Amino acid sequence: MEKRVLLYYTGGTIGMVLDDKGDLTPGKPGDFTKEVKRHPELFEKEEEDGWIVLPQKATDDCPSQYIVKYLIEEVEKPIDSSNMLPEEWNVIAEKILYEAHKFDGFIVLHGTDTMAYTSSALSFILPNEFSKPVILSGAQRTLFEPRSDAVENILGSLLMAGCYGYHPTIQQVSLFFDNKLFQGNRVTKFDSNSFEAFTSPKFKPLVEMGVDITVNYTERWCSTICHTPYRPLGNDSDARLLVLYPGIQEDFVRSALEHAGGVVLASFGSGNVPSFDWLQEAVKEASKREVLFLNCSQVFKGVVVPIYDVSSWLTEAGVVSGRDITPEAALTKMIWVLQEDLSYTERKELLERSIRGEMTEMIDPK
Amino acid sequence: MEKRVLLYYTGGTIGMVLDDKGDLTPGKPGDFTKEVKRHPELFEKEEEDGWIVLPQKATDDCPSQYIVKYLIEEVEKPIDSSNMLPEEWNVIAEKILYEAHKFDGFIVLHGTDTMAYTSSALSFILPNEFSKPVILSGAQRTLFEPRSDAVENILGSLLMAGCYGYHPTIQQVSLFFDNKLFQGNRVTKFDSNSFEAFTSPKFKPLVEMGVDITVNYTERWCSTICHTPYRPLGNDSDARLLVLYPGIQEDFVRSALEHAGGVVLASFGSGNVPSFDWLQEAVKEASKREVLFLNCSQVFKGVVVPIYDVSSWLTEAGVVSGRDITPEAALTKMIWVLQEDLSYTERKELLERSIRGEMTEMIDPK
Amino acid sequence: MEKRVLLYYTGGTIGMVLDDKGDLTPGKPGDFTKEVKRHPELFEKEEEDGWIVLPQKATDDCPSQYIVKYLIEEVEKPIDSSNMLPEEWNVIAEKILYEAHKFDGFIVLHGTDTMAYTSSALSFILPNEFSKPVILSGAQRTLFEPRSDAVENILGSLLMAGCYGYHPTIQQVSLFFDNKLFQGNRVTKFDSNSFEAFTSPKFKPLVEMGVDITVNYTERWCSTICHTPYRPLGNDSDARLLVLYPGIQEDFVRSALEHAGGVVLASFGSGNVPSFDWLQEAVKEASKREVLFLNCSQVFKGVVVPIYDVSSWLTEAGVVSGRDITPEAALTKMIWVLQEDLSYTERKELLERSIRGEMTEMIDPK
Amino acid sequence: MEKRVLLYYTGGTIGMVLDDKGDLTPGKPGDFTKEVKRHPELFEKEEEDGWIVLPQKATDDCPSQYIVKYLIEEVEKPIDSSNMLPEEWNVIAEKILYEAHKFDGFIVLHGTDTMAYTSSALSFILPNEFSKPVILSGAQRTLFEPRSDAVENILGSLLMAGCYGYHPTIQQVSLFFDNKLFQGNRVTKFDSNSFEAFTSPKFKPLVEMGVDITVNYTERWCSTICHTPYRPLGNDSDARLLVLYPGIQEDFVRSALEHAGGVVLASFGSGNVPSFDWLQEAVKEASKREVLFLNCSQVFKGVVVPIYDVSSWLTEAGVVSGRDITPEAALTKMIWVLQEDLSYTERKELLERSIRGEMTEMIDPK
Repeated sequence: MEKRVLLYYTGGTIGMVLDDKGDLTPGKPGDFTKEVKRHPELFEKEEEDGWIVLPQKATDDCPSQYIVKYLIEEVEKPIDSSNMLPEEWNVIAEKILYEAHKFDGFIVLHGTDTMAYTSSALSFILPNEFSKPVILSGAQRTLFEPRSDAVENILGSLLMAGCYGYHPTIQQVSLFFDNKLFQGNRVTKFDSNSFEAFTSPKFKPLVEMGVDITVNYTERWCSTICHTPYRPLGNDSDARLLVLYPGIQEDFVRSALEHAGGVVLASFGSGNVPSFDWLQEAVKEASKREVLFLNCSQVFKGVVVPIYDVSSWLTEAGVVSGRDITPEAALTKMIWVLQEDLSYTERKELLERSIRGEMTEMIDPK
Repeated sequence: MEKRVLLYYTGGTIGMVLDDKGDLTPGKPGDFTKEVKRHPELFEKEEEDGWIVLPQKATDDCPSQYIVKYLIEEVEKPIDSSNMLPEEWNVIAEKILYEAHKFDGFIVLHGTDTMAYTSSALSFILPNEFSKPVILSGAQRTLFEPRSDAVENILGSLLMAGCYGYHPTIQQVSLFFDNKLFQGNRVTKFDSNSFEAFTSPKFKPLVEMGVDITVNYTERWCSTICHTPYRPLGNDSDARLLVLYPGIQEDFVRSALEHAGGVVLASFGSGNVPSFDWLQEAVKEASKREVLFLNCSQVFKGVVVPIYDVSSWLTEAGVVSGRDITPEAALTKMIWVLQEDLSYTERKELLERSIRGEMTEMIDPK
Repeated sequence: MEKRVLLYYTGGTIGMVLDDKGDLTPGKPGDFTKEVKRHPELFEKEEEDGWIVLPQKATDDCPSQYIVKYLIEEVEKPIDSSNMLPEEWNVIAEKILYEAHKFDGFIVLHGTDTMAYTSSALSFILPNEFSKPVILSGAQRTLFEPRSDAVENILGSLLMAGCYGYHPTIQQVSLFFDNKLFQGNRVTKFDSNSFEAFTSPKFKPLVEMGVDITVNYTERWCSTICHTPYRPLGNDSDARLLVLYPGIQEDFVRSALEHAGGVVLASFGSGNVPSFDWLQEAVKEASKREVLFLNCSQVFKGVVVPIYDVSSWLTEAGVVSGRDITPEAALTKMIWVLQEDLSYTERKELLERSIRGEMTEMIDPK
Repeated sequence: MEKRVLLYYTGGTIGMVLDDKGDLTPGKPGDFTKEVKRHPELFEKEEEDGWIVLPQKATDDCPSQYIVKYLIEEVEKPIDSSNMLPEEWNVIAEKILYEAHKFDGFIVLHGTDTMAYTSSALSFILPNEFSKPVILSGAQRTLFEPRSDAVENILGSLLMAGCYGYHPTIQQVSLFFDNKLFQGNRVTKFDSNSFEAFTSPKFKPLVEMGVDITVNYTERWCSTICHTPYRPLGNDSDARLLVLYPGIQEDFVRSALEHAGGVVLASFGSGNVPSFDWLQEAVKEASKREVLFLNCSQVFKGVVVPIYDVSSWLTEAGVVSGRDITPEAALTKMIWVLQEDLSYTERKELLERSIRGEMTEMIDPK
């Protein structure tokens, strides 16, 4: 069986070169493609029109005989991921949809810094019916350095997007790093030095690679309202991330809420927010202006659970509980609902539901 | 040897009671003290003036014969830790200093939500010469529930503040939870459900308790300028925590910087900040107004390392690198330097140095 | 709903007392019972006939209103778990079956050293139809010491055997330690100092306790031939555990096989055994004499997978693959099949099947 | 600075090829060398006499400018590591000493199954004064497969043996796997499927590799009697590993002790051994015959600590406590002391001391 994959380089460490002083800097167009072909793990031969054939041996641990071919495409101006903007998520999504008929799977190479934001965003932007694997990946060290995780991450992504792409659990937006495949809107960067740069603090990996490849057969998320169409983000994102801290100032909060369309509150512990009068008033007043609020925990393995008296005013004030959503998924979901051509009530309803498995919809009732 | 410890209840889950609906609510004054005395692990007998003697057996794994006595004091109005304000850190510090002559060690029971902020703050406020153990602790479930971590955490803290308090590594502000003692300004809440609620992502625990008690003999932090006196925080904290996210808006950033005395930038990855012109201008302009900037990573195990070209403007713009400092320690350090009666240059110098071991001062030069 | 539990103390650290030198030594009969009653977490009141009522608050996180009562019974001569013999596993199993009509669940307090052997053995001895929770537990430090995991482990076990016992996943032989419930024949002791003494290296815990109690709804093992009746072990166990090492001597192996009824081979890596001629001959010759062989890995997270040429003689020689079985479960299963009134072929068939979920029966075929 | 390394392939998965059925099988002589040269991470160019130059970029994270060259040597008949015998440890040690003048560091590629035994053995056999890095390594999947850990492990080993070899902590026998360097006699295989195949359960890694390379500056072991010369093992190893289990039979133990020179007892928990009369007699009687006994724990993170009454007869019976030694190091140390031309008392003294840092010599006295 032949499978065709697009390897789309958008920027990030994985494709950067080292200048004379040993600093990382973007390469010239085509440099990355040339470097990929130097690695025998990734390159068997090149066919006409630039299709690269993955070595047959690489697909040996695929469930049946697969031939995986891929095209490399580099964006004209690679983007450092800390400069990545929501409109660029649109560009990536459009690219994927535009090329959908040509490919069985997509790999988006991206800087690690905001990769978890991009993978979350793409999960919301792409239509629910789009059931081809879209895999974000990258590296902690560049492909041009011998000691690097780049080859391993590219090869693993190619196997996931190519021969493993028939698995329902993989037919979604995901992120591959350090031998693990994570659901795209459940992942977070958690180590800036280790090759194990990402983790999924409240959700187990979809796939783990060792001597064997183990797929965790979790059911795919699905819900009655999740059949949302493709809808790109608008130009003017007025979603904000406000991380609470002791002594947070009224003027800071008020100015944050003033021009906001929606605010992600990264709260303490199990979703707790101070009960100061001015804060309650500010939130309630903004809610009245139809500013949306989504509560997620700033704690690494934190889940929003309404048990403390001190935070009981939140529901009243129109703040939606994000349960076990990550801040990355919460922010991108907020941007996404704001861009929908929808009423305040409809937007709030979308926030309250799991759209792409980004949060646990039903907490097991005791 | 007799050791005297103050067990100071300031609020938090550990001392809350369950109301008829099973919700947590503050108890009546004295309830907590009465409950402590019901537990044979914590109570041998009560002496005159309210001194409680820890059971002799509890000190069996102390290095030599110790008698540990403690006084319980409950604040009049227990504070939910999500409502804790910087001025209350002053109150706790004053209390400790005021009572210093009466006690060999101090335990501050506190809600878990902002405990890592309070332990960081106290490490800066207390004078460097204060070499008695000050241990923050609390619980994930209340002492009034049978299935609780409260007894274990109180007992462990008493052993640390009492018989183990002679260890130089423990004569500082620390946090005890789930059988581990952490340096107070290196710890972060990382799980809202597990009893292992805290961790110290970039620094190993000072003590680990199992069948035996293991003290990690790390050297105590010390630096030429660390001999800072006791200096309480002022009333008007204008330190802010600004967590970056893709699509962060100019007006949000500008309003955040407008009234700020100092800003903690929780940056991407290894300390990366977008290089947008408006952002560079906003930061440079604020720096010119002597707004302080401290860069820490929003990544759980993230360290600020200046390697990427995209962020090279930060040093130029006066942003101080926080290296491996946590956001909690970064924010409380910022509040602390702002309250000092110091010039902008002196404040910046304090940010650049490790004052109480809150960051690794010298990154090993290759 | 009222649930009745037997708390059966068979020996081990949890019930030992400290003598004058601080050494652990068995207490006098009744000492343990008296000490349990001193702990308010475990004791509400005592009813007639010695029934102890668990405090109502302890059952607060049970799914509905439960009253849990328990009887404590201490064996006359507590057994140090390193002296525990297979015939004593029979005694425990008989006790449970004899008292089955009186109780809804059983807790066996036991020393930690061989607890994983006992929990494995009981899983095989008890009939498949016995669907009441049987929970092994104990402690790393004695109940008589204030700093101890004993109260926590007893209370957790009582909740599991009492109010949580209705869960199919818990209606089996399991082991509770440090806030986790493990399947009894999947667990191994892995730390002699930490309170986290046990783990289940190739199988996730059945239950995890934190602020909330999380039950992992794994399906209960079941197989066509697992409906085995109660059958105690005989007096004369001739099952042996032979752990391979480089340079293992022919005379040692031959003498080990000489009087053996069955041999557990703890092999290297993924089930590899040296291919020395003398070893092949010795195993084949013993197989001809109907000595049973079960291959399990000596590697902590090791699984027997037949991929290396060097070990292909094993199947031929009649060695059964234990896949992901632990050495503890492998040894006790071997003792169990040897005591069955069965032919060599029937015994081998039992070894090849999962009887009580002790191994993954079908490795997912690619 | 130019550094010369020997890359010595002795066998194991890393150099095996896949036959037509996809099974692993040894390659033809020279196959491995040819395959190494296909990988741009490992091969810059070949000089006369077969010296391969590591790409300059690979040494970029070395502390100063290094040129690393290496020679590959394949043994004539690669050995499957489950067939590895103590006499082959001699051959490897001789090879290293014989070639010592030509190389600055040594890499021994080896199968993973018994690699921890070989690394332990080499640490004892090589003279204390030999202060060049000797690094064992290998792979979970062969170099001939694209999805493999082989390139990463070879490159990491070359950096350790080459440019990092000047570190005192690395100038010893160590084992490199999955971006970590472990002390050779402190390591154990713990996962047969993951690329993280090895760990060092009671001792932290010497080096960890991520974006940066972190060397843990632990002091190098040293003791008054550790200045032992090179002394190969004899042909006739009569050291045995006896892993205890409940129901262990007298005849099995007696036959194991009969022809033994020394026995490693893998005991329960913290070093506990049953106190059966027959066992005490058997051990005492063998001790009288000058059979050596070394007690190590069968528990993964187990340490032998004499606290339980039941095992107090061990010291009396001449059993030496191995404290935190691994079974792998205990067995190879026993083989080593037995081959020394020494008296029973001298051998026992060697067992009681840390010779190459294989155990913690002094447990911190309280």
